[in-house]
Amino acid sequence: MRILGIDPGYAILGWGILDMKGNHFSVVDYGAVTTDAKMEMPVRLQHLYTQLTAIIEQYQPEEAAIEELFFNNNAKTAIMVGQARGVAVLACVNGGLEISEYTPLQIKQALVGYGRADKKQVQAMVKAVLNLSEVPKPDDTADAVAAAICHGHSAGNRVRKLLKAK
Amino acid sequence: MRILGIDPGYAILGWGILDMKGNHFSVVDYGAVTTDAKMEMPVRLQHLYTQLTAIIEQYQPEEAAIEELFFNNNAKTAIMVGQARGVAVLACVNGGLEISEYTPLQIKQALVGYGRADKKQVQAMVKAVLNLSEVPKPDDTADAVAAAICHGHSAGNRVRKLLKAK
Repeated sequence: MRILGIDPGYAILGWGILDMKGNHFSVVDYGAVTTDAKMEMPVRLQHLYTQLTAIIEQYQPEEAAIEELFFNNNAKTAIMVGQARGVAVLACVNGGLEISEYTPLQIKQALVGYGRADKKQVQAMVKAVLNLSEVPKPDDTADAVAAAICHGHSAGNRVRKLLKAK
Repeated sequence: MRILGIDPGYAILGWGILDMKGNHFSVVDYGAVTTDAKMEMPVRLQHLYTQLTAIIEQYQPEEAAIEELFFNNNAKTAIMVGQARGVAVLACVNGGLEISEYTPLQIKQALVGYGRADKKQVQAMVKAVLNLSEVPKPDDTADAVAAAICHGHSAGNRVRKLLKAK
């Protein structure tokens, strides 16, 4: 199973593509799509969509894991990030991917086994699970890869549960 | 000038297309793209994008006027509506339209001359300006048409100012 993990944002959209065989993950590629603050928002959204669509076409992932967004107060920021998330979801659904969403809590739980784990702990697990020499940069990319790992574990659990039920 | 007005939303996205010649508006068409609450969000976003793209291809508007979103507290709703707004903006920019954004205050000011005008007053002006026998339904469609009129007035003012400056 090839998984695309996404950490949505309008300035930086982190992405990571992993292959999962059994319980083993291998890295296909990861990176970040960035947009310039000097660009107008419609052009930024178009750039995010076009780049993510190109990544999907290049690597042909089958499933997508997108981090859910949380904001306490700032509805203005929420709308802006929501717009970026919308075009990311659209790129995935237009690319034929099955999309799952995970809260930061679920991702931390899946990687560290503890929902209040800090960023460093999650990144250390990303590095360990994928046998990398260093943590993917920027943080958005590491978060996207973590979402992909979380999805792989969840999908694995789903399969195991199905097998058990038979 | 052919203007597409949009009132973004994920359950109902209102749209209206007007032609403006001089200070005169004429209606080309208006309506609403709706999505079912039973559909998953990625499919709803895809439906909004596909339908809006088809409307743009059919009517070939040159400029788009999109209502800006405001939320006081509910960041969760803001993210959901932000996603719908993101795919609407993407459909416009991918369709080659120039996009302008207007706050509800600006739209009320442009139509009624008073930023605290109520919905009924705005709808009465939409009906009067376009010489319609009734107010476009649902409210989202009337709001989209109002955004288009607001843009027409603003663009008209811009042209007049340019002429004056010469």
